[in-house]
Amino acid sequence: MKEKLKIGLLGLGTVGSGVPTILQEHQEKISQVTGMEIIISKALVRDEAEKRRLAEKFDIQLTTNIEDIINDDEIKIIVELIGKVEPAKTFITKALENGKHIVTANKDLLAQHGSELVALAQKNHCDLYYEASVAGGIPILRTIANSLAADNIQKVLGIVNGTTNYMLTQMVSEKKSYDQALKEAQDLGFAESDPTNDVDGIDAAYKMVILSQFAFGMNIRLDQVDTRGIRGLSLDDVEMAAQLGYEVKLIGSSENQNGSIAVEVGPMLVAKSHPIASVRNEFNAVFIESSGVGESMYYGPGAGAKPTATSVVSDLITIAKNIRLGTTGHMFNAYQHDTKLAEDETISGKYYFSIEVPDRHGQILKLTQIMTEADVSFDQLVQQKSDGTRARIVAITHMITKHQMKQVTKKIESTDEFELLNTFKVLED
Amino acid sequence: MKEKLKIGLLGLGTVGSGVPTILQEHQEKISQVTGMEIIISKALVRDEAEKRRLAEKFDIQLTTNIEDIINDDEIKIIVELIGKVEPAKTFITKALENGKHIVTANKDLLAQHGSELVALAQKNHCDLYYEASVAGGIPILRTIANSLAADNIQKVLGIVNGTTNYMLTQMVSEKKSYDQALKEAQDLGFAESDPTNDVDGIDAAYKMVILSQFAFGMNIRLDQVDTRGIRGLSLDDVEMAAQLGYEVKLIGSSENQNGSIAVEVGPMLVAKSHPIASVRNEFNAVFIESSGVGESMYYGPGAGAKPTATSVVSDLITIAKNIRLGTTGHMFNAYQHDTKLAEDETISGKYYFSIEVPDRHGQILKLTQIMTEADVSFDQLVQQKSDGTRARIVAITHMITKHQMKQVTKKIESTDEFELLNTFKVLED
Repeated sequence: MKEKLKIGLLGLGTVGSGVPTILQEHQEKISQVTGMEIIISKALVRDEAEKRRLAEKFDIQLTTNIEDIINDDEIKIIVELIGKVEPAKTFITKALENGKHIVTANKDLLAQHGSELVALAQKNHCDLYYEASVAGGIPILRTIANSLAADNIQKVLGIVNGTTNYMLTQMVSEKKSYDQALKEAQDLGFAESDPTNDVDGIDAAYKMVILSQFAFGMNIRLDQVDTRGIRGLSLDDVEMAAQLGYEVKLIGSSENQNGSIAVEVGPMLVAKSHPIASVRNEFNAVFIESSGVGESMYYGPGAGAKPTATSVVSDLITIAKNIRLGTTGHMFNAYQHDTKLAEDETISGKYYFSIEVPDRHGQILKLTQIMTEADVSFDQLVQQKSDGTRARIVAITHMITKHQMKQVTKKIESTDEFELLNTFKVLED
Repeated sequence: MKEKLKIGLLGLGTVGSGVPTILQEHQEKISQVTGMEIIISKALVRDEAEKRRLAEKFDIQLTTNIEDIINDDEIKIIVELIGKVEPAKTFITKALENGKHIVTANKDLLAQHGSELVALAQKNHCDLYYEASVAGGIPILRTIANSLAADNIQKVLGIVNGTTNYMLTQMVSEKKSYDQALKEAQDLGFAESDPTNDVDGIDAAYKMVILSQFAFGMNIRLDQVDTRGIRGLSLDDVEMAAQLGYEVKLIGSSENQNGSIAVEVGPMLVAKSHPIASVRNEFNAVFIESSGVGESMYYGPGAGAKPTATSVVSDLITIAKNIRLGTTGHMFNAYQHDTKLAEDETISGKYYFSIEVPDRHGQILKLTQIMTEADVSFDQLVQQKSDGTRARIVAITHMITKHQMKQVTKKIESTDEFELLNTFKVLED
């Protein structure tokens, strides 16, 4: 008989119920690798009656009282899958204070209170793992912490929100409108009834906070991520991007420029030849540029019960091994660095501007003057779609600073009869 | 002052000299993560004079005698970067017997004598890591061993040879012939003057042996990999594939069918919508299908001094941490399973046949009869390119077994006036 390792589970929803399923399905392999039998002994639920059948199937004791789990001395690890900040934060805090190791998939919590919880775990010699919090089934955090430990990362960029990537794929390939695509994502269960966190880029921003911590050892706040979503994105822009050789993707990016980082989330134009451009539907991908490895990319499902539960169980296996070897209490990511944010003057990129102008001579000249004043030159310039009174000009600049981009944006917005429809950052291969 | 961890390096060539470079460049990060200072103290070279400047730069003591390193009690880890089976095998064996931990990038050795060396490492409570042996800069072995430990892998397939992928990319995008593409790969230093191991698929087969060990816990021999290369591949087939919506790639695949595995290497037609189809030039990618995560892909440089050296240093960091925690002597991959090979009757796939036939009526009927006899039906059928006396028929079948494929192949080959030009497996999205 192998030693039993008892787990308490907070939340027995879609992902939660995936955890005992995965543990049961791969029991033999898991016990071979860890030398232990991992068992979910108790689960915290809101309504015991509702989860009774599931509990019987996996022989899990249900409770509606967190104390039953936190004060159970036999339980060594607590898996938190409730989501959102509270009461998850209170539960995890108490559990760590009681010496329980923690596995969580809670990106909201980690992005906003990560350093506090990491410090508390350290103080109590507990493990705290959260691989599933970023890009669901892709083992990106462990890869950065272990395999890229010998490397110097310059840039992490990714498609880290499956809902919006699904919507954008539908808009590009099926010519669906933003509203149609959103409705379909909701019908398929990818988007919640209130899609704010997804479409406004907040969910992606949470993940970029966590990725920046791993890639650069820096703790940034959510309000330090320059965040834009895809709300109201027009099919016109998506089609124009395709004509120019780009896909529109909601990209999270975190870049190191001489020791300072710039973190942003927003719709970007990605060159079709870039490996990340072909990531479709609900899939996620994280692309890394580093001085040692060069370019690498990690691709997989961004969400879903099974991939997320698999990721949670891989964290459980890691802790099980640590318990066995007596090596718990080390940080998931040991790399720490002073946090420094880059100034707009040092962040550079190519930018796409889409501007509605009067359909009269001299408009391109007027735009060119604005650009020239800010020392910005064009890479591509297209005038198209006139209804006789209004026309549209689309411009892609050469590399400029974010400061220049803001200057130009301000100038265009204050120019009589010019209407700035959209600005996107442009990622080349 | 941090504790010093002394390393012996066997081979100070391109990759070898990358190791002290990476250690020096990322010294601060590495010592933070490991709590130690990792130092290359000695290196085995063939000619001391030739490497003197390099040795002085990094303060490495050179020797031409392996005993100087193996018998140095201060050296805890030996990094083997000589390549090929001998003398590497003898050196590693002696080193393990002397209690040294090993890092190697030697795929030839691991594929042919891996289980023997793993057993020896176990016996001597030593670590043996070889992340760099498969797909250079992609941390694929560690990902399978750690992050997918909770998962059940059904299929691993990949572009694991950069040289041939570079050649195929040039043939597709630049319409270069096989010979031109090979010459260019040699000029760029991707292919050796004797390109046998690359173009005949042997290098890829080595990697599939190692990947199969990690994914399925099974030890297979090189002669159990059904191996074909790309030697003499014609531009005709590459162009025909493109017309039908496929890219020709040299694919290594290892598939689990009800507990038995089928491992093969060969040129395959990959549907353009498959994530692996867009992997270009010298890049590698490994695509995994598993019951938990679903589809995931890991992409990066397949070779090169810096990526490979980075991978070697990530292994060094792992061992350094193990030494610090007193947890050395555990297997890189703890998953073990009885080895069972699948029969041709249970392996299935779609296949592409390209056949030269006389330019007369009734040839398609004749081919259809052969196919029907073997219970094989067509998905696509194209007759094209006639010079007045000979025409070419290209057929893609529906899913059939490998046994059926062999039956049909044999029949076509023995049919008067039919000449089988090529057969490829077909991978759909």
